[in-house]
Amino acid sequence: MNEEKSEPLFPSAKASAKLTRRLRFLLEADKLRRIERQTFISDSSRRENSAEHSWHLALALLLFSDAAQAINVNLERAIQIALVHDLVEIYAGDTFVYADDAAQISRLEDERAAATRLFGMLDDEQNAEFRALWEEYEFKTSPEARFVATFDRLCPMLLNFATQGRAWRKHGVSVGQVRERTLPDLESVPELHAWADEMLNEAVELGFLKP
Amino acid sequence: MNEEKSEPLFPSAKASAKLTRRLRFLLEADKLRRIERQTFISDSSRRENSAEHSWHLALALLLFSDAAQAINVNLERAIQIALVHDLVEIYAGDTFVYADDAAQISRLEDERAAATRLFGMLDDEQNAEFRALWEEYEFKTSPEARFVATFDRLCPMLLNFATQGRAWRKHGVSVGQVRERTLPDLESVPELHAWADEMLNEAVELGFLKP
Repeated sequence: MNEEKSEPLFPSAKASAKLTRRLRFLLEADKLRRIERQTFISDSSRRENSAEHSWHLALALLLFSDAAQAINVNLERAIQIALVHDLVEIYAGDTFVYADDAAQISRLEDERAAATRLFGMLDDEQNAEFRALWEEYEFKTSPEARFVATFDRLCPMLLNFATQGRAWRKHGVSVGQVRERTLPDLESVPELHAWADEMLNEAVELGFLKP
Repeated sequence: MNEEKSEPLFPSAKASAKLTRRLRFLLEADKLRRIERQTFISDSSRRENSAEHSWHLALALLLFSDAAQAINVNLERAIQIALVHDLVEIYAGDTFVYADDAAQISRLEDERAAATRLFGMLDDEQNAEFRALWEEYEFKTSPEARFVATFDRLCPMLLNFATQGRAWRKHGVSVGQVRERTLPDLESVPELHAWADEMLNEAVELGFLKP
């Protein structure tokens, strides 16, 4: 494929300040497609990016709408969180879930600054609205945020298994790390948690995860 | 990047038939990431895929929630349509919006078969639910579907301009084609339609679109 990178160009067509801000934000948000995560897509051909991950996550939420309803989770809010939750990575980058504590602390500081910069492109009202969605997820302050976290863990697990533990093996991840750091987030959907628990044993048996 | 393609592997962990169907569907849906569209991402480095496009579209809808409200469009439903609208491309492929009529007719037949195959992976209730979302968009039978179409056109226009008309120039697209085939879909948000109309003139002046 021909690769001639260039800076995105924004039209000079006249619009209200509010519309211009939104369109500039929408174009800036496009950059999330360039942020690579550790997980590989299902055919193992390349790593996934955070934009398509956000879509896969939102789709998973829609698929489990009955599970959301069962625990009084507002699905509309949950999907909005999913669409916005990784946007700060445009400036802060993606931090691997199994990175050490120092990396996680630095991540939070970077993401806070990124949120101020990115959502600050919008007018005050939308800035507050988008920042609230991001913070709700960052600090898991609602059942909706915790429901999103369940699938934010589930999707990469499913892909990791599908790709024979491609990212797990690359980073030497052990089943103990998964059980400690990511599996607990699946508890909001008990049936899914039980399934994943068994899947992890299978992953160890097959050599996708370190014992 | 190391490219060792492989068939996605599905865990044998026990689950209810309903859960297994959903997880298999979620893994199958991942393949939408492999469907390339004609539009380039904002830094012009590569073409966009339909999964990340679906995310960008859903985000645009969220950004214009007040425009939805102003015309009594249910934003939750609109976003659900956006998440699902391109899934049939997994089997049917993406058809360029400026392809000829014969290609558009063949597209519809292929997509219908794809919908039967893909959504048929789900249980009857969810099969019907997902198929309804797709058909609603395909035939633009609701204000929600028409609102989604506005941004399904707007996003690639914005990217085409941002990349100096990369896909437009590659396919020799004229401003007349855009005005006839895509611009009318923007009418549900008049301010956006007016902006895009002016942007197209600028695109012609700059040589991004044929006069």
